[in-house]
Amino acid sequence: MTAHDATALTDTDTYLRVQHFYARQMRLLDTGATDDWAATFAEDGVFAANGLPAPVRGRGNIAAAAKEASRRLAEAGVVHRHWVGMLTTEPAEDGLLRATCYALVLEVPRGGEATVHRSTVCVDLLAPAGGGWVVVDRRVTRDDLA
Amino acid sequence: MTAHDATALTDTDTYLRVQHFYARQMRLLDTGATDDWAATFAEDGVFAANGLPAPVRGRGNIAAAAKEASRRLAEAGVVHRHWVGMLTTEPAEDGLLRATCYALVLEVPRGGEATVHRSTVCVDLLAPAGGGWVVVDRRVTRDDLA
Amino acid sequence: MTAHDATALTDTDTYLRVQHFYARQMRLLDTGATDDWAATFAEDGVFAANGLPAPVRGRGNIAAAAKEASRRLAEAGVVHRHWVGMLTTEPAEDGLLRATCYALVLEVPRGGEATVHRSTVCVDLLAPAGGGWVVVDRRVTRDDLA
Repeated sequence: MTAHDATALTDTDTYLRVQHFYARQMRLLDTGATDDWAATFAEDGVFAANGLPAPVRGRGNIAAAAKEASRRLAEAGVVHRHWVGMLTTEPAEDGLLRATCYALVLEVPRGGEATVHRSTVCVDLLAPAGGGWVVVDRRVTRDDLA
Repeated sequence: MTAHDATALTDTDTYLRVQHFYARQMRLLDTGATDDWAATFAEDGVFAANGLPAPVRGRGNIAAAAKEASRRLAEAGVVHRHWVGMLTTEPAEDGLLRATCYALVLEVPRGGEATVHRSTVCVDLLAPAGGGWVVVDRRVTRDDLA
Repeated sequence: MTAHDATALTDTDTYLRVQHFYARQMRLLDTGATDDWAATFAEDGVFAANGLPAPVRGRGNIAAAAKEASRRLAEAGVVHRHWVGMLTTEPAEDGLLRATCYALVLEVPRGGEATVHRSTVCVDLLAPAGGGWVVVDRRVTRDDLA
């Protein structure tokens, strides 16, 4: 496949729906709806990150970790905004979809200045579910640790 | 509707056209074409923000406020760049479209460093107009004031 | 054409494929795959920027310049992430496509804080090639120098 080969794009409809999925998913996390956010992962989904000591396995554990992180932010009076960009999608094994993107976390303290908190690369394996997707496997690589 | 339900997406064509609309709209504002920018609002459109003392009502007042803000930036030798991201669209009452997004304002002083000026959430009601849309109602919530 | 005229959008499929193209193109640059990145330019492509003393002409020269820039970043232990946003596309002369966007460069030092390195406006002329595009002409305007 050459560098300018656009055929890796599964299809434009799928690509758009994945954009929409991420918009909703990230907003759920950022607004503290952590159970709804965790529901966008598969029951046995995995969240791995080079900023974590070990991968978090299973929707329940993913929900618990997000809830605790959300609690700490609220306590500190800080808002996080996750931005996804530079998204590509391609078919993966077993009918899954591989989505690769840059993900940025902006941090905004109440009454303070917004800053770029994290710059990361995120690689997801998505499974079709209910007209949308669930995340089967997420790998987040922080650029400052890479 | 579950967290991973993609059916809230009106249709992919509409979603894309809204992206395109915002790209053009924000660039009009950032380049100081404030009358053209105001023309993307309905005649009786409303611009409300938690950073404003009161909502601005009507295209003429929206244009005047934008022109004055643009004049001050030019005088200060500062460029603003509005970025829209994490967009979702859904049908709203009366044939309108509700578009929700994160909106970021980058500030770049001439000869200086770019910084994140504002992080906001923007909720628009859009009405079909001339093959595109006009903003009937915009609510901007600054994250640092929320 | 009025400010809210959406018909400038060539077609939604093209618009999406250009988004996908930029996502792949920028990631090639950011991961140091500078030859693959340069292959997304036409053989006689031009890269002009108000931050450069003169336009870089031809794929070979574009590759060499990118390779050298990439080498310096690696040596400094710094990662760049190019984000494209607020994209519009419109038909241009000779069957080309004009794509206009904001392009942001985030800079992340190893073990350090991510910052906004550059805010720019990018105008490309794209030619169809192999199911995708190649850049025939790129004009990058840094906002801090504009």
